[in-house]
Amino acid sequence: MRTIGVVLFPRFELLDVFGPLEMFGMWPEEFQIKLVAESGPTVESSMGPTNMVDDLFSDNQKYDVLLIPGGAGARQQVTNPVIVDWLSQKSETAEYVTTVCTGTAVLAQTGQLDGRRATTNKNAFEWVTTCGPSVDWQKQARWVEDGKFFTSSGVSAGMDMALAFIAHVLGQDKAEQTAGWAEYDWHQDATCDPFAVQAGLV
Amino acid sequence: MRTIGVVLFPRFELLDVFGPLEMFGMWPEEFQIKLVAESGPTVESSMGPTNMVDDLFSDNQKYDVLLIPGGAGARQQVTNPVIVDWLSQKSETAEYVTTVCTGTAVLAQTGQLDGRRATTNKNAFEWVTTCGPSVDWQKQARWVEDGKFFTSSGVSAGMDMALAFIAHVLGQDKAEQTAGWAEYDWHQDATCDPFAVQAGLV
Repeated sequence: MRTIGVVLFPRFELLDVFGPLEMFGMWPEEFQIKLVAESGPTVESSMGPTNMVDDLFSDNQKYDVLLIPGGAGARQQVTNPVIVDWLSQKSETAEYVTTVCTGTAVLAQTGQLDGRRATTNKNAFEWVTTCGPSVDWQKQARWVEDGKFFTSSGVSAGMDMALAFIAHVLGQDKAEQTAGWAEYDWHQDATCDPFAVQAGLV
Repeated sequence: MRTIGVVLFPRFELLDVFGPLEMFGMWPEEFQIKLVAESGPTVESSMGPTNMVDDLFSDNQKYDVLLIPGGAGARQQVTNPVIVDWLSQKSETAEYVTTVCTGTAVLAQTGQLDGRRATTNKNAFEWVTTCGPSVDWQKQARWVEDGKFFTSSGVSAGMDMALAFIAHVLGQDKAEQTAGWAEYDWHQDATCDPFAVQAGLV
């Protein structure tokens, strides 16, 4: 059983969080989901819906897997030393660290991605890369696996990354079962990224 | 500006709710999102994450659009007279009623879909159809539009339906923009439904 710490901050992007959690949540015997934030008891998303927090950063819980979403609020979080320091420390000890969209910017700010291959939202690419000048940014990628880091492109790409992560830790059959239950057309080719073309990056 | 009433109940399916809300939430000047439930102040999803409720059924608010998700909890809700009566009344006055997955079963239970074409999750198809014997159930459909009713197949299909709904009320360009922002590969053909084949329905 792995504990997944899902990092929430004000104005997080809904689907960055709940797309992957739909997939992970189908395996309650494998993954325990905990929403964690700097302050509680609730955190409001970009779109308004507001979630209860399970843990605070100050509770200093251990997480096997981190999930870092993006969203409008990520632009504030890259200069928030509380989240950057906490993520820096928790990423060191986590078995896996996953990001969606501009969540990659917040992780990059910790320096943990330096020298690693990583990707992010294609419409925010230029800004995100300034948060991690020593990261080996991949312009055309639905998601990127490098060691313990699984980073993904914008919003919906988090679901494809989550299924790739499930394939990695639970096997391909369980990932396909997950996609089937969710009636999700899983994009299994991590290099197929029409949104990089749309954004003029390649 | 349309108000969307999102009906929550214990053990709702995360992506049934937050997939469509990701899409609707990109147009805050067009849609106001309200989470509404029989009781509050919070409702817990199937996967554990718990949301704050904006309105209670007893507040008797008016909604222009209803969004009814499915999930493990839907099986209890079809025999809960409180939600069935409330939905029956609110569906009468709403401009549009949308469902995802087994949320269609709860709506079917009100009789509002009688004589209408509708669809639902392909793995729960047999059970759902018993909740609405007079509904014209569509076995192979990603989503179905019939008058003011937009019903969709399992979980992820809610995103395709939501984009079709945005195309219907705001125009095709805005729907395509929404999908692009979410880096979502929108399935625009409502009749393309590989999951109906996988489930052995066709």
